[in-house]
Amino acid sequence: MKIAIYGYGNLGRGVECALRQAPDTECVGVFTRRPPESVQTVLGAPVYHVDDLAAHKENIDVIIICGGSATDLPAMTPALAKEYNVVDSFDTHAAIPAHFAAVDAAAKEGGTVALISGGWDPGLFSLNRLYASAVLPEGKDYTFWGRGVSQGHSDAIRRIDGVADARQYTVPIDEALEAVRSGVNPDLTTRQKHLRECYVVAEEGADLARIEQEIKTMPNYFADYDTTVTFITAEELAANHSGIPHGGFVIRTGVTGKDGEHKHTIEYSLKLDSNPEFTASVLVAYARAVYKAASRGEVGCKTVFDVAPADLSPLSAEELRAKML
Amino acid sequence: MKIAIYGYGNLGRGVECALRQAPDTECVGVFTRRPPESVQTVLGAPVYHVDDLAAHKENIDVIIICGGSATDLPAMTPALAKEYNVVDSFDTHAAIPAHFAAVDAAAKEGGTVALISGGWDPGLFSLNRLYASAVLPEGKDYTFWGRGVSQGHSDAIRRIDGVADARQYTVPIDEALEAVRSGVNPDLTTRQKHLRECYVVAEEGADLARIEQEIKTMPNYFADYDTTVTFITAEELAANHSGIPHGGFVIRTGVTGKDGEHKHTIEYSLKLDSNPEFTASVLVAYARAVYKAASRGEVGCKTVFDVAPADLSPLSAEELRAKML
Repeated sequence: MKIAIYGYGNLGRGVECALRQAPDTECVGVFTRRPPESVQTVLGAPVYHVDDLAAHKENIDVIIICGGSATDLPAMTPALAKEYNVVDSFDTHAAIPAHFAAVDAAAKEGGTVALISGGWDPGLFSLNRLYASAVLPEGKDYTFWGRGVSQGHSDAIRRIDGVADARQYTVPIDEALEAVRSGVNPDLTTRQKHLRECYVVAEEGADLARIEQEIKTMPNYFADYDTTVTFITAEELAANHSGIPHGGFVIRTGVTGKDGEHKHTIEYSLKLDSNPEFTASVLVAYARAVYKAASRGEVGCKTVFDVAPADLSPLSAEELRAKML
Repeated sequence: MKIAIYGYGNLGRGVECALRQAPDTECVGVFTRRPPESVQTVLGAPVYHVDDLAAHKENIDVIIICGGSATDLPAMTPALAKEYNVVDSFDTHAAIPAHFAAVDAAAKEGGTVALISGGWDPGLFSLNRLYASAVLPEGKDYTFWGRGVSQGHSDAIRRIDGVADARQYTVPIDEALEAVRSGVNPDLTTRQKHLRECYVVAEEGADLARIEQEIKTMPNYFADYDTTVTFITAEELAANHSGIPHGGFVIRTGVTGKDGEHKHTIEYSLKLDSNPEFTASVLVAYARAVYKAASRGEVGCKTVFDVAPADLSPLSAEELRAKML
């Protein structure tokens, strides 16, 4: 399987590393909008300009598109799906149906296979919501995120006057998790589910009280949450908050029996040291599935819901039945 | 979807209840080897003798076979798959490849679809082993069972001279779970992973010390474990140990990054008040998938690895993308 990486930020670097861990894959190279000579890859993958992609077409089985969901992927994925098998990590939940329609049309036009919204949420978390609700139709499910860095919330803090740098952690609240696990099906407000922890480096002489007030009252981002603000030095931020951890929980509780007398809890959780590297690892597994589907002559757009689990593995069906079932 | 239940023990009763929770299914009836008039169903499903199955053939889309793995399923599933779409919960891990081959041949001969080894282990736990290992190829996974009742171990105790009744719980050891979650990839002995808790009702005048000794030294079942034996009355057994709870954990830890410097933990757990009812709920979801596959003209034997998640849900692909992705 010859895989190309399209876009080379944190996610693209993660894909380069993940491909090395997948012995049935080969990294064809990185395609970037920047001058190729300005890009240094982690493991030495060759770098090309996106304008030179067509010259490599015969050598590419699947492109893993590592762009952002806001503006990159809605344009890139349909455009590339007209010519290549592709995988992306489109994660704007509300816009998935429209993105699916655009990519499906492009893939059908091009005779290719595309998989959108790979990763862990959407992605592995979505799978767990689906499996759990199919098995326990009378029940309720909950998704919690964290403890992990929210890039969007960190950026929102950085835009405040007097802020030099910031890191925001989304933290699930233990009491809410326990209430959900108990099976009482609680109705939880936004504030009851997650805390927001902010670590802020202020510019010299900045009004700390004003910054804290601006963060805590920011609509959409913080006003609906219990938020803590801790001012730290740039050195402390670099030393203690340079990672990009994340994770979370998908929990479904439900009942079975003659009178719903038996309770069941299904819980899935992730604890990730590196959000982009883990997301990249999921994308590589789905690139394998796309390759297999294309090899069978399938065409069109898929999501994680449409992929049989066996297609994600390098093992044969026989090996899987003997070793993992 | 018209579903027949073949065999009516705890699992069959669970399927009858689970079908009521699946609005797109209809319970055609229960087929039993016992005299039908001797069988009282939980929710009033009609009862027929297995010899009368053929008379109902036109009215059956899928049969859920609720027999035991030791002797029932190896014969029943291939025989029924020659004529009907079927689902079973065959759970003798080592014998799965042979069972698959027999059922696959029968289903191909009959032009039917069969799914074997549905349930939670094999089943949902197998899925999680597969997904996690596909995403984190450099890692290690662990399966823990319990806290739950092991029917086989309970039966083994009951066969000891002087034992009137018994219930055995398999209990995962917290320290082992924590060691696994920490990502140190421990090598764990059988004794380090699970405890065995035995609640025993002795016959009047029986030698309790001898019974306890016989349990704790029983090869295969108990000798390799730390085992506790508690003698209780028949009334206590009925009051506190009449349920059939079970559950467990599938945990994979792995690394990503340039030098494997980032750790990740994927954890899936089940906490089940009723092992047979939960297993039954999984079988009903897979009966739906078998029905959809048969409707598409597919033929042959599948396992949970071969079923795209979307096939388990009564929702359409559009609804799933909009609501669950």
